Amino acid sequence: MNSIIKEAFSPDLFREEGHKLIDQIADYLNNCYDRKIEQAIPWKDPNELLAMWKNIMTGDKMSFTEIIKGTLDNSVHLHHPRYIGHQVAVPTPHNILSEMVSALLNAGMVIYETGQTSTAMEKIVTDWLCRKIGYGSESGGILTSGGSLGNLTALLAARQKAADYDVWEEGIKNGDDFIILVSEEAHYSISRAGKILGLGNGVIKIPSDENFKMDLNELNRLYNEVTCGGKKVIAVVASACTTSTGTYDNINDIADFCRDKKTWLHIDAAHGGGVILSEKYKHLVLGIEKADSVVIDFHKMLLSPGLATGVSFKNNNDSYASFAQKAAYLWNKDLEQEWFNIGKRTIECTKKMMSLKLFVQLKIYGEDLLREYIESRYAAAIIFTQMIRKEKDFEILTEPQSNIVCFRLNPGNMNGEELNSLNSGIRRSLLEEGRFYIVQTAAKGRIFLRITIMNPFTDENDFNELINEIRRHNKNIDP
Amino acid sequence: MNSIIKEAFSPDLFREEGHKLIDQIADYLNNCYDRKIEQAIPWKDPNELLAMWKNIMTGDKMSFTEIIKGTLDNSVHLHHPRYIGHQVAVPTPHNILSEMVSALLNAGMVIYETGQTSTAMEKIVTDWLCRKIGYGSESGGILTSGGSLGNLTALLAARQKAADYDVWEEGIKNGDDFIILVSEEAHYSISRAGKILGLGNGVIKIPSDENFKMDLNELNRLYNEVTCGGKKVIAVVASACTTSTGTYDNINDIADFCRDKKTWLHIDAAHGGGVILSEKYKHLVLGIEKADSVVIDFHKMLLSPGLATGVSFKNNNDSYASFAQKAAYLWNKDLEQEWFNIGKRTIECTKKMMSLKLFVQLKIYGEDLLREYIESRYAAAIIFTQMIRKEKDFEILTEPQSNIVCFRLNPGNMNGEELNSLNSGIRRSLLEEGRFYIVQTAAKGRIFLRITIMNPFTDENDFNELINEIRRHNKNIDP
Repeated sequence: MNSIIKEAFSPDLFREEGHKLIDQIADYLNNCYDRKIEQAIPWKDPNELLAMWKNIMTGDKMSFTEIIKGTLDNSVHLHHPRYIGHQVAVPTPHNILSEMVSALLNAGMVIYETGQTSTAMEKIVTDWLCRKIGYGSESGGILTSGGSLGNLTALLAARQKAADYDVWEEGIKNGDDFIILVSEEAHYSISRAGKILGLGNGVIKIPSDENFKMDLNELNRLYNEVTCGGKKVIAVVASACTTSTGTYDNINDIADFCRDKKTWLHIDAAHGGGVILSEKYKHLVLGIEKADSVVIDFHKMLLSPGLATGVSFKNNNDSYASFAQKAAYLWNKDLEQEWFNIGKRTIECTKKMMSLKLFVQLKIYGEDLLREYIESRYAAAIIFTQMIRKEKDFEILTEPQSNIVCFRLNPGNMNGEELNSLNSGIRRSLLEEGRFYIVQTAAKGRIFLRITIMNPFTDENDFNELINEIRRHNKNIDP
Repeated sequence: MNSIIKEAFSPDLFREEGHKLIDQIADYLNNCYDRKIEQAIPWKDPNELLAMWKNIMTGDKMSFTEIIKGTLDNSVHLHHPRYIGHQVAVPTPHNILSEMVSALLNAGMVIYETGQTSTAMEKIVTDWLCRKIGYGSESGGILTSGGSLGNLTALLAARQKAADYDVWEEGIKNGDDFIILVSEEAHYSISRAGKILGLGNGVIKIPSDENFKMDLNELNRLYNEVTCGGKKVIAVVASACTTSTGTYDNINDIADFCRDKKTWLHIDAAHGGGVILSEKYKHLVLGIEKADSVVIDFHKMLLSPGLATGVSFKNNNDSYASFAQKAAYLWNKDLEQEWFNIGKRTIECTKKMMSLKLFVQLKIYGEDLLREYIESRYAAAIIFTQMIRKEKDFEILTEPQSNIVCFRLNPGNMNGEELNSLNSGIRRSLLEEGRFYIVQTAAKGRIFLRITIMNPFTDENDFNELINEIRRHNKNIDP
């Protein structure tokens, strides 16, 4: 046996490096939560950071601990309460540790044999999700590596189901005869999925109303226009919630519309689907159980490290149709027997053991942790909004429905273009200093600052400081 | 602050549970390598295992350590030298630990801001891969969650490039006018990708020769047949190596053919691409640098936990074309400036920080570990083959080119059907006992036993024992 292989695989090495790493991470978490780390994002220019890591790669010997220190020092600190940037989960200790076990076992998931426990856990977690959505016993789901892949998988099933010929075997005959209707505010992965599936401009954007919800009159109008022209709507996609403003579409009304039209309803609930766990907020997705498919990311509001997306189907058989229409016919009678060969229902062949972290989280904390986390972050958005409303030189874009808030500085003496450039400048200046990480969004042509309150420890003090910092950066960028 | 949230996010909890877990895993690794664990796969019926985990989910309180113990006890043990089943990497300690850091940081990767260090590392690792393939300075690559997604991404670029209209915007006009030519031995993800892309039966299988390589005469014949019929070949896909028999297609000849025909060549080198690191074995992929795109899974022969797939493009600009033809035109001049916004080139929006483990591995061990690992496992396949050849009651399907070997028991007095059912029965019996985990494959209608030598510590003693076990199980299943 070659010595380098023996060395690299040594359990003693694992034990030694592992214990050091655990302490390093625990210290890091403490420093984040206590705000001892000064920046939420240690901004560096991409080329500068690339040069730094290239030097490290080619340079002197370095210990694992030092490489990890460099990595922690030069990464966005999600665990820092002043991280209020994108919709990425702040994972809990048990979730972080569970991912190490998944990495250790490295169970492929295409057939039961390669991932026995992971397969069982995946069924338990996806069944739980279906029940929480309100689906009946004929439902079922799978996990995919991310929401984009999840949306693609669901829309693939919709494409198959709607066509009056076997698309899987015969191919797309005239791409943009197949139409997906989706709000202009929807995540870009929907449009991208349509284009991957060969529909081109067949993904039609429905204008949103003044609150950034899909306009139902427009939905109706465009549906009629499209179908009168001989085209086929294979799916309507609702957002729960939208990415840029955190707005929930009127799912119940859209669901009734789809039922009348016998059209597949897919809900991209990647970010906001977690409200199914909250009595207080589940009205936001009223009617979700009428959808044919729903995507919910565990790595957004469900505290899980990425990637882990639940794709739920009202009718479990539909999920088999995604990938093998013909084979699905053959298997029809035995579908119930096939739950454990997950590769038949996913784009992925080797698929990571994603279920362990979800199972552990549910087993140890039940739904309580997830529910209380979501409720507390949604409530924080309301608190922040109330604070902003009290500041005369700030404005809110729209009443927040989730933990996403869009707002901006508006000193009152500027035109639209000046306001856009003011807020863009402030955001850039904040980023480069790095004490807060917030982002920006364009809403019907107007640039707004945008926060997503993901960190469980972001509080009113942080909000106050953010408001002050924005004013300070405003002065900095003034001519 | 709610107490359950505080408890769940406690750094002290992380430290305590983390140290326990490190010891638990180190002990587990020791027990695997020392073969103190009796089974390589603790086989249980899917429904039985599901019932067990359901009971655990709804049952009494259980510690994290106990849940993990149950998980380890009921999972396939890749780290066990008698695991010689599927092509799944046995990850090294540093790789396992690095994954925990990725989970901690949970960096999304759609734009540079969200994953600064991960983006820099992804460029370093993918550039390294391009250089090893033999690509020039105009090349570039990305990481995707798995080979299926990688093949889909590359073929999407091919679809875009080959069409004489804007498929991305206009949609597929007549799916099976676009043809992908691929050996009948190729991985199913190629055919699946074609069908997702709307080509239906446009994925045409080329018969393989007696050594399971793509038959070049058949490639030529089918190419002419298809193009004379007015269809367009958007890509030829070569395998390096095939999944079922581990055979490398004649890449150099196929590349010359594609150059003459001006057709995109994609190489699915998910399993066998690692030989680019070995002077001894890189002749197997002679000509790989002529391909337009290459997929190599780090989570197969490059010792990485899943998922982590390198998708390399000979011309980096092609990778932008996959997802936004129009935008790619706009950006053309600035493409070089855009290397750090990886979301423009991947199906994934939120994408995991996959690069850290690859960077760490390369930094700490260079290419030596990977090269010596691959060479030792390829050599082990030859040793096993020589051993089998000495046994009169065994036969080899074809001379192995990689660490995949197909063989079977053939007592000499059975017809084809009996032999198939004998070997299937032996494999089932082995699985249920679980001391070895091996699989089976159907090669031109004949069932063979199949091993992939992934574990770095599988040796001649294990092989001897496997041969004896197969004979013992043969007796067991005899009437």
